[in-house]
Amino acid sequence: MRAVVLDGERSVSVSEVPDAALSGPDGVVVGVEQAAICGSDLHLYHGEVGGLGIRLGHEFIGTVLEAGPDVRRFRPGSRVLVSGVIGCGRCPACVAGDPVACRNDGLAIFGTGLDLPGGQAEAVAVPAADVFCLDVPEAVTPEQALLLTDILPTGYLAALRAQISPGSTVAVIGLGPVGILALMCAQLFGPARVLAVDRVPDRLRRAEELGAEPLDAGQAGAADLIRQATGGWGAPSVIEAVGSDVTLGEALHAAAPDGTVSVVGVNLAMAFPFPITLALLRSLTFRVTLAAIPSTWEALVPLLESGRLHPDAVFTHRMGLSEAPLAYRTFDDRTDGVLKVMLDPSR
Amino acid sequence: MRAVVLDGERSVSVSEVPDAALSGPDGVVVGVEQAAICGSDLHLYHGEVGGLGIRLGHEFIGTVLEAGPDVRRFRPGSRVLVSGVIGCGRCPACVAGDPVACRNDGLAIFGTGLDLPGGQAEAVAVPAADVFCLDVPEAVTPEQALLLTDILPTGYLAALRAQISPGSTVAVIGLGPVGILALMCAQLFGPARVLAVDRVPDRLRRAEELGAEPLDAGQAGAADLIRQATGGWGAPSVIEAVGSDVTLGEALHAAAPDGTVSVVGVNLAMAFPFPITLALLRSLTFRVTLAAIPSTWEALVPLLESGRLHPDAVFTHRMGLSEAPLAYRTFDDRTDGVLKVMLDPSR
Amino acid sequence: MRAVVLDGERSVSVSEVPDAALSGPDGVVVGVEQAAICGSDLHLYHGEVGGLGIRLGHEFIGTVLEAGPDVRRFRPGSRVLVSGVIGCGRCPACVAGDPVACRNDGLAIFGTGLDLPGGQAEAVAVPAADVFCLDVPEAVTPEQALLLTDILPTGYLAALRAQISPGSTVAVIGLGPVGILALMCAQLFGPARVLAVDRVPDRLRRAEELGAEPLDAGQAGAADLIRQATGGWGAPSVIEAVGSDVTLGEALHAAAPDGTVSVVGVNLAMAFPFPITLALLRSLTFRVTLAAIPSTWEALVPLLESGRLHPDAVFTHRMGLSEAPLAYRTFDDRTDGVLKVMLDPSR
Amino acid sequence: MRAVVLDGERSVSVSEVPDAALSGPDGVVVGVEQAAICGSDLHLYHGEVGGLGIRLGHEFIGTVLEAGPDVRRFRPGSRVLVSGVIGCGRCPACVAGDPVACRNDGLAIFGTGLDLPGGQAEAVAVPAADVFCLDVPEAVTPEQALLLTDILPTGYLAALRAQISPGSTVAVIGLGPVGILALMCAQLFGPARVLAVDRVPDRLRRAEELGAEPLDAGQAGAADLIRQATGGWGAPSVIEAVGSDVTLGEALHAAAPDGTVSVVGVNLAMAFPFPITLALLRSLTFRVTLAAIPSTWEALVPLLESGRLHPDAVFTHRMGLSEAPLAYRTFDDRTDGVLKVMLDPSR
Repeated sequence: MRAVVLDGERSVSVSEVPDAALSGPDGVVVGVEQAAICGSDLHLYHGEVGGLGIRLGHEFIGTVLEAGPDVRRFRPGSRVLVSGVIGCGRCPACVAGDPVACRNDGLAIFGTGLDLPGGQAEAVAVPAADVFCLDVPEAVTPEQALLLTDILPTGYLAALRAQISPGSTVAVIGLGPVGILALMCAQLFGPARVLAVDRVPDRLRRAEELGAEPLDAGQAGAADLIRQATGGWGAPSVIEAVGSDVTLGEALHAAAPDGTVSVVGVNLAMAFPFPITLALLRSLTFRVTLAAIPSTWEALVPLLESGRLHPDAVFTHRMGLSEAPLAYRTFDDRTDGVLKVMLDPSR
Repeated sequence: MRAVVLDGERSVSVSEVPDAALSGPDGVVVGVEQAAICGSDLHLYHGEVGGLGIRLGHEFIGTVLEAGPDVRRFRPGSRVLVSGVIGCGRCPACVAGDPVACRNDGLAIFGTGLDLPGGQAEAVAVPAADVFCLDVPEAVTPEQALLLTDILPTGYLAALRAQISPGSTVAVIGLGPVGILALMCAQLFGPARVLAVDRVPDRLRRAEELGAEPLDAGQAGAADLIRQATGGWGAPSVIEAVGSDVTLGEALHAAAPDGTVSVVGVNLAMAFPFPITLALLRSLTFRVTLAAIPSTWEALVPLLESGRLHPDAVFTHRMGLSEAPLAYRTFDDRTDGVLKVMLDPSR
Repeated sequence: MRAVVLDGERSVSVSEVPDAALSGPDGVVVGVEQAAICGSDLHLYHGEVGGLGIRLGHEFIGTVLEAGPDVRRFRPGSRVLVSGVIGCGRCPACVAGDPVACRNDGLAIFGTGLDLPGGQAEAVAVPAADVFCLDVPEAVTPEQALLLTDILPTGYLAALRAQISPGSTVAVIGLGPVGILALMCAQLFGPARVLAVDRVPDRLRRAEELGAEPLDAGQAGAADLIRQATGGWGAPSVIEAVGSDVTLGEALHAAAPDGTVSVVGVNLAMAFPFPITLALLRSLTFRVTLAAIPSTWEALVPLLESGRLHPDAVFTHRMGLSEAPLAYRTFDDRTDGVLKVMLDPSR
Repeated sequence: MRAVVLDGERSVSVSEVPDAALSGPDGVVVGVEQAAICGSDLHLYHGEVGGLGIRLGHEFIGTVLEAGPDVRRFRPGSRVLVSGVIGCGRCPACVAGDPVACRNDGLAIFGTGLDLPGGQAEAVAVPAADVFCLDVPEAVTPEQALLLTDILPTGYLAALRAQISPGSTVAVIGLGPVGILALMCAQLFGPARVLAVDRVPDRLRRAEELGAEPLDAGQAGAADLIRQATGGWGAPSVIEAVGSDVTLGEALHAAAPDGTVSVVGVNLAMAFPFPITLALLRSLTFRVTLAAIPSTWEALVPLLESGRLHPDAVFTHRMGLSEAPLAYRTFDDRTDGVLKVMLDPSR
């Protein structure tokens, strides 16, 4: 079968690989119908982590082709979406939907290593399917289902963990796909104001349409913009959705006393220069989130079904799996107004 | 000066009364510019509580005419809104905006007894002004300011105490002024669905415009309607905004297991027949709320200023203070599409 | 095999009944080693609910004799404790340990009806064993394991839901087995004071040994005692562990403004006379709890293992299963200093 | 009058300074009866921050000598304890006891700069006394009152913000005065286990007497010790009470997935090397706390009065103010079994 494979720095190919096979009696093989490229895939694409030969992708939905004997909830033909992050599937944390806290050290992410091949492929083996797959709800679009596999839960938890109280102000720094979803989710917590910081006019416009106040980071640093917009006070809740040292620092400087900085941008440093004196004088909370994806479905599915969340528009590009090299290049270069790319394995 | 006075069952007059005078060194006299009639005023109007001669009204805004020597935040000319519920003004609970928990047993409501004359008048004496008055914010309309004196805080706390989680379902039983504001506030907590129950078509239509699903209580009991709309499960959060024994019972039967019934309708029984077996088998929480009004202003004022809440439309009638007898009758009879009545003391 | 069977009002016998048999592929048969009588068994004993022929008992531990083919966590020989309350075992609520909120209406309590025979017997069939059984932890005594099947989780949730904040005051009304465990659990939440109300000197003494202030309900009503002990203010958290209309009313009158009454005493009325005006003027929260037993084990087992909780002493009597008629009589009459009775099926 | 003055690196003197004078109409002058040296004073003593001539000390209690005309709660003769951290005293945050979030940028700490002279002196001027002073409760010892001015609130908030759930495990790294108080306060939240890490045998022994499990940091790094004690899992709550880069790093490595690191050790770096990848993979929360001191008194005073907290023993040394140079040297060198030093201005 065909799969997107990492060939080297900034190079992927669509290669022929061995067919996906059941990982065990609790696993399924999913025939992929839609996959997506995630901002975190770029850390592999840039060669920061991982290595050659990795089959990429942790966002995918499709139809069960084969199910192990211990699988109870699914059978061949079930249309499923799959958590991009998994665990052992048996411990209390996994059963509760939080593989990040897997008691058996089973935390793994599809498409980031050699032993859990990715979903930008024609098929994928998924372990512990009863815990990590979900029947695609009828009223949910393929775009929404794809977003439920990673970045909508991630944006939601970023907002949840930002401790937004009703009537408060939240700032979102970085309006890429995760940032814009975090912004939508922030609106669920009743803020009076949402400040949205980016440099890209299209992204700022999109945020404004979602009820946020756009702040152009081309004009000044994010912290200065946010302080200016809040009479010098800063924002009680700041969501950082970029992940660079610079924006993380801006996020910390933008937070009001007793405030929270909720980080969802991926930064792979082991020594980010953290302004701890500042955090002390303002009694700040700093949280980084790897999403406990299945734990969020109970909240997010009804929000999608009722139309209160309608995130489909983050997909700006739909391309065939065979176009993956171009898709990665476009996504990485941020050309052509790209926000998020869907890949279709049938093409 | 003129004031609305309770003359007997279903009878009020606009009478000449002694001028309002400072209650003490921490008090102010407010020249009333707008007052409103509250659903709870009808308990007095119906003769359920209180007695003859009471000067009615606990919702009013105006301009400070005179300020005692200990008042720091206001002076003659300040435009203020006043909490309808007050306390001693000195204890930690009062200072924190919660006179309901006044440590000196100072809890009092304007216009419900003889010793704290009401605000449907040309002027009112307000004790402990620094704690119970608020400068009317510039971006806030008179309608909004009036609502901040009682029923918007009440609706907000009803929603807050209903423990609505994102993606959940909340039901509001009773779409009078408080119910409709509770519904608006419930939306701040990110529910996927808001079910709105009433019999009056206008009220159901208004709820639908606010994003709720209207359920016509003329067709069936509220509990049946809510269970039907939730596949038999019930609503995890139910807000009761009527106060009758029947609707309170419906609210309890409508709640899902582990759910919360948040009561904001006023019921003056000392022996409401509570179905405690039902509450046990479903592990229910039942809360009744007398609003800690000033504690809510920090959240509500920014929500009004930013336009996220826009409750002005609950005022359907604007009448002169001199028309108070007609205003009460209209409000009590629910004729003429009335939802809420504003009274203007200059007329 | 032998089992305790309800023969009529205030009459039980130890009768020969058909052997316990697997309820289905996810079930186990447990050979009972210890069982206990619960205060709620007395509602059946008194003929208030249930009917003749019921095999009683929902508190038991023992050894798995037989396991269905779908059971993963246990096999013959496993020593287990069993949740007295169960559900379907498959829905998200059951999987999360909360059968009270079973989505498939599967809520059931052992020994309260004809279709789920009780555990005061030589053996019991337990459905959905993976979800509702727990391996008895090594460091846990049989007494503790028995308490984990119902009344320790119940006492814990009563305390948790009483919203005790550090430095606050909690009152416990009724110092029977559940009350005394609720009192122990209340201490986990850092109250400055625990007020303990009962009439029985032994029970008051026991509470005092646990760090509580004993208040003798023989001297005055519980509300008066609690108000007197708190300078008239009342207790912010009140745990009601009796269940009579009188004590429920006392609990409500004993609560401070903004306070919570957490009910764990069983009252089977459908029309308890609830003082709703009082609840309004004090903005009270009233919660009734049927325990989501398995959800508490993650917290309670470590507390038992580390010795922070040591509730064994609630067992005052150990008798043979064959002595069940005497055991019930003693427990019902509260003679012989009885607090809680353990039954041994081998005798 | 006499006051402790910073003369240079590791040098203080007891010098004659101008008498304390009212700071304004809302201020008082307090005649100091007891003062204490805080670990954070050593940052000044070491020359890391501040400058020559600073009058040191932010922990003191005494008697009001003079009160400005706007002071309502105190008058000459009132025995008071004073928050070491203050703000404007008028904004909602200050009124609510949180000067860290002072809306008027009024945050200040006694004895850390030239404009707010310290309390290791015969007298101190205290602004906004109604908000930042508290009558010393009768049942509270001078030691306890002194601890309420800073480090007990600090330890309490460290524990509160560590998000300890009942039955969980909390680790405290560093058992100096703040660490040991944080440990006492951690016990208020119902943990099953408290792990206590230090190198000093006396400190470990003291922790063990308080119910903690001592872990000797002379044997291995704190993270290794804590992981070993928890079967490799780490602690869901970690309190860091040292403030060095090393121990902060250990604290982060010691936290379990979804865990919280609550920092109360003072680290004045602007670029602490934060392992953000680790925080991501474990979804950690990292909080630094400057204590909102007055906000904690409502919880802490009753806990002291009822004897549930009894922290007096942290004071190991009582010396005259005139011995301040020796006192600082002893405290800095950690000789003579010193944990905390009280200074008596009458000597």
